[in-house]
Order: sequence, then C-alpha cells, then structure tokens
Amino acid sequence: MAKPVRQTKRRDQLADELARAIFNQDTRAAGRVLSLIDDRDPLAKAVLKRLYARTGRAHIVGFTGSAGSGKSTLIGRVTAELRSRQKQVGILTIDPTSPFTRGALLGDRIRMRDHFLDQGVFIRSLATRGSQGGLSGCIHEAAQLLDAMGKEYILIETIGIGQDQVDIARIAHTVVVLVTPESGDEIQGMKAGILEVADLLVINKTDLPGAEELYAMLAHLLDNRGVRIFKTSALSNQGIAALVDGIEKHRSGLLASGDQQQKASEISRNQLLALIRDELMLKLRGKTSKSNIDQWAQKIAERKSDPYTAAEVILGELGF
Amino acid sequence: MAKPVRQTKRRDQLADELARAIFNQDTRAAGRVLSLIDDRDPLAKAVLKRLYARTGRAHIVGFTGSAGSGKSTLIGRVTAELRSRQKQVGILTIDPTSPFTRGALLGDRIRMRDHFLDQGVFIRSLATRGSQGGLSGCIHEAAQLLDAMGKEYILIETIGIGQDQVDIARIAHTVVVLVTPESGDEIQGMKAGILEVADLLVINKTDLPGAEELYAMLAHLLDNRGVRIFKTSALSNQGIAALVDGIEKHRSGLLASGDQQQKASEISRNQLLALIRDELMLKLRGKTSKSNIDQWAQKIAERKSDPYTAAEVILGELGF
Repeated sequence: MAKPVRQTKRRDQLADELARAIFNQDTRAAGRVLSLIDDRDPLAKAVLKRLYARTGRAHIVGFTGSAGSGKSTLIGRVTAELRSRQKQVGILTIDPTSPFTRGALLGDRIRMRDHFLDQGVFIRSLATRGSQGGLSGCIHEAAQLLDAMGKEYILIETIGIGQDQVDIARIAHTVVVLVTPESGDEIQGMKAGILEVADLLVINKTDLPGAEELYAMLAHLLDNRGVRIFKTSALSNQGIAALVDGIEKHRSGLLASGDQQQKASEISRNQLLALIRDELMLKLRGKTSKSNIDQWAQKIAERKSDPYTAAEVILGELGF
Repeated sequence: MAKPVRQTKRRDQLADELARAIFNQDTRAAGRVLSLIDDRDPLAKAVLKRLYARTGRAHIVGFTGSAGSGKSTLIGRVTAELRSRQKQVGILTIDPTSPFTRGALLGDRIRMRDHFLDQGVFIRSLATRGSQGGLSGCIHEAAQLLDAMGKEYILIETIGIGQDQVDIARIAHTVVVLVTPESGDEIQGMKAGILEVADLLVINKTDLPGAEELYAMLAHLLDNRGVRIFKTSALSNQGIAALVDGIEKHRSGLLASGDQQQKASEISRNQLLALIRDELMLKLRGKTSKSNIDQWAQKIAERKSDPYTAAEVILGELGF
C-alpha cells in the first residue's frame, strides 16, 4: 500500500531535519532517533539512509564479560582515557544488568558520573529486542548514528555469554573480553567462546587473589592465537592506558593489513542480512492476516497439523 | 529444484526408521536426530514431521539464572526428585557455561553423575546457533524430540540474561528463575526481566548470608504478581521436594484454568514464525547468489550504497 504523498513528503522533510541535526552533533536529536530505532519506526530508516554516506570512520569496540566483571567501570575508565587523547566517544549498552540500562529502565538516560557534562561523550542504553531474536539490527543502526555524529570510538557493552556474545562479534571491529579472578569457574565453559570472539582479553580486578594464576592459565590457553592479554583494575584505574594503547594498536593493525576493509565488508553483510530478514518478516505479516497465523498455531497446538507442514503451506500460499 | 525421486525415497525411509526408533526410546537414535537438528539437516525436519502427532504431553520447564547461581546442580536435584516420583525426564542445556555443555565441547555427551546410568533421563546440550540469531528453532525441535520419546518433564537450562532469557519464555510452560544471595547487585537490573518471565522464583544457596533479606526484598517486589518464591540449597539438597511440588502445582493450575491450551497455542505460534523466518532466509539464499550479497556488502562497506536501499533492491529483484 503506497503512503499518501503528503505523508511521505512530511516524513522526508522531518528526516532531512533530523539528519542535519545529527551532523551538527545535536544530542537531543540523536536521542530521538535512537528511540525511533528502538521502536522500529520507519522514520528511523529514512534518517539512517541520509546519514549513511558519512559513516564508516568510527572504530567499534565491543566489551563482553559476565555480570560483575566490571564492564561498566572499565568502559568509564577507557572513555576517560580516550577523552584525554582528544577522541570523541559514544557508549551503547545492551546489557540489562548494566547501570546504564538501569537508567533506561527508569525512563531516563543515565548520566555516567564522570562524563555526563562532557559533550564529547554520548551514552545510551538499548532495549533488548524480543520479537525477532538477536540484537544486531538495532545495534548496527545505533552505532551508525553515533558514527555520523563524529564519534571516533563507539564502545558497546554487552553480556558475555549466549547469543548476544556471538552478535557483538558481528558488529565490532575490536572485541574486548573481560574476565576476573572471581570468574574462574566460568572460564572453563567460556573457553571456546573466548577464543572465537576475543581480539583483546582483559583480566580485570587484578588486585584480587588468583590473578597471576589466571594470567598463566589464559596465556597458556591463548598461546599462538594472537590474542593479547591485559591486566587492569578498573576500580583503582590501573592498566587503562596500556589497554587503550592495545585497542589503538589493534585498530592500526587492522588498517595496515587491509583487514579493516574485510571486517567492514563482513559487518555490512551482517547488517544487510539482518535487514533483509526483518523486512521479509514485515512483508509476510503484511500479506497474511494475524488470524491466519493464529488458526494455524491452534491447529498445531491441537496436533491436527505440524509446524513444518504449516510453514510450507503458508509460504506457498504467499508465493514465496 | 526437485530432489531426485530415489533420494527423496531414501530420506523418507531413513526418517521412518529414525522416528520408529525414537518412539522406542532408542537414545542413540535420539542423539543422532539431535545432531541433525543442530546441523539443520533436512532429514531432521522429515523425522520431526513424523513425530509431531505424538508430542504435546511433556511439560517444559525453563531454568534461567546467571552463571554461578547453581542451575545445573538444581536441575540435577529436581531430576532426582522427579525420577523418585516415577517421571521420565529430559534435560537440554543451551548455557555455554554449563557443565553439561563442557561435555558437548569435548564432543561427548556429558554424563551427569547421578543420572548417567538411569534410562529414564536423557541429557543433551545444544550448540548456540550463530547464523540466524536466537535459539528458539533448535530448542523447540529438540524438546519435541524428547516429548515424542515419552519424557514427561523437559528441563531446559539457559543463561539468565539477554536475548536467551526472552527466548526461553517463548518455549517453556513454566519458567523458573534462580537468584542467590550473591547476586544482589544483578537483581536490581534484572527486575523487569524477572517480573516478565518468571513463573516460579527460586532463591538458591539459602545457607549463604543475606538470604532472608533477599527473600523479603523479592516478596515485596513480587507482591500480588502470582509468582511463588522458593528457598533451596541445591548443594545440600534442601527445599527440592517443595520446588517440584510447586512446578507440578503450576502445571496442574495451567491445565485446570485452560491456560495450558493457550500457552500451547502461543508456543506453536512462536515455533511457526521461527520456522517461517528460517525458511524465508533459506529461500532467499537459494534465489540470490552469495556473490550478489557479497557485492552489495562491498558497496555498502565502501559507502557507495546504504544497507537500507540494498535490502530493498535485493528483495525487489526477487519479487518479495
């Protein structure tokens, strides 16, 4: 169904205005567009289309690690260090246990103690999307918005296990995985995951007992894999400059080797496939009625049909 | 492209044999079909179609809670209690930090100490799926397989935060959320999630200090929401019978109120939509070449196009 001309025109105008405001680093406009992204409002897409050509300069760093590993504190310290190096920073969190998110739960953008008056930092938490599975769509778009605002580093905080960890590796140029001497139990289980996604490994809370043993164990585990291990104590601000050096070195290594281009291409492919998937589901919902799906669900629940046959019939009816 | 007749015939025959073996509770066949499900092999679907009419009797219980909350130990205790009540039990884990999963990482089905010689229990860990986002497809299918084998209770272990938590609520009849006196920090952040998905709340490790305060805090938080709170110590086997009573009571409550039917219908709808989504993506990949997607990804990465336009063009070309 085509939109009325007037409505489309109005949306285009609004999208132009919002895009202009984003280029001018208007944080209020950025907050509004992020809400539109969270709500999957078509206006968000119109704005992002306008922004896209001016993106691609930001370096996206994903931070993962289980609850209690100190991600938020570390991200705060890394941000302070990047700011002292005159870099513009954007922070996105998708960890529901993050203090940033708690702000979002209260319906209010959280203000990070050290940075809330700093115009060079933009902080936002994103809702966990329930309907389609996976967080990638939203994060790609939010990161591109910050990129278009001129943020040079975008730090994304996510939980360290499960699907969300896989997703972050599809978006970030550099993946930082945090472990602590407290998380020894988990590390055995995380092994495979860590080795697959980590570019840099951080042992946080190095002042706790067991840090040296953990280091030795991880060094042995990661031998010859090109993953560097850093020791930090985010709380007492130790080891942060070395970590930021490591992030910058990883970035310049990617640029020098041409891997950055390959990574950019992979990230684009992942976003494209996520968009196509979402769009296909939207089209499906437009073409079939909710009651048709409900009737099939009922039949399946009553074992009068099975879900595999139902999916085939529905797709066949729609000519897919 | 139609499959050659002979190949289809052979697959049908193999599917018939596997389905028969599953009905006969052949655990080796079950392990094989679960591998086929994990691999998204078309043979899995053919088997599941045959099994489906004999499913729908199992009660699916999801256990979520962060790493270290004692999920695996609790599931072991609940299993022992259910076995002592003569119930058949299936266990699925999708938590990469689970000891069950460690077994899977070693390429070997883990043997849970107390249950490995017990034919009434079937344990399996599922790989985290990376490609499509979300775990639901695989879990639905694995649960249906166990259901067809005659398992009366299917216990699913998942991580307690992020997307995976949302997913489990789409599959389980009863969602059990574990917290411990150690996880006080997280609970503030988890609040909204807990209230949305928990049917039963378990305070595990009640022997630790702070358990009573936690109980009081949660009781206040959950006031009037119909979520019952249980106190357990999985390690010392305390409170397990009461929890299993609670699970059985939740089950019979759902059956008596007719909510079970509604829940079954919702679960069917979720599985149907997940299957349709996967099938659409498969069809898309069949209709467009990998190189077409790669070329678009390249153009997007170079900012010669944007992902939104690319998605529209690709879907348009395919007549979607």
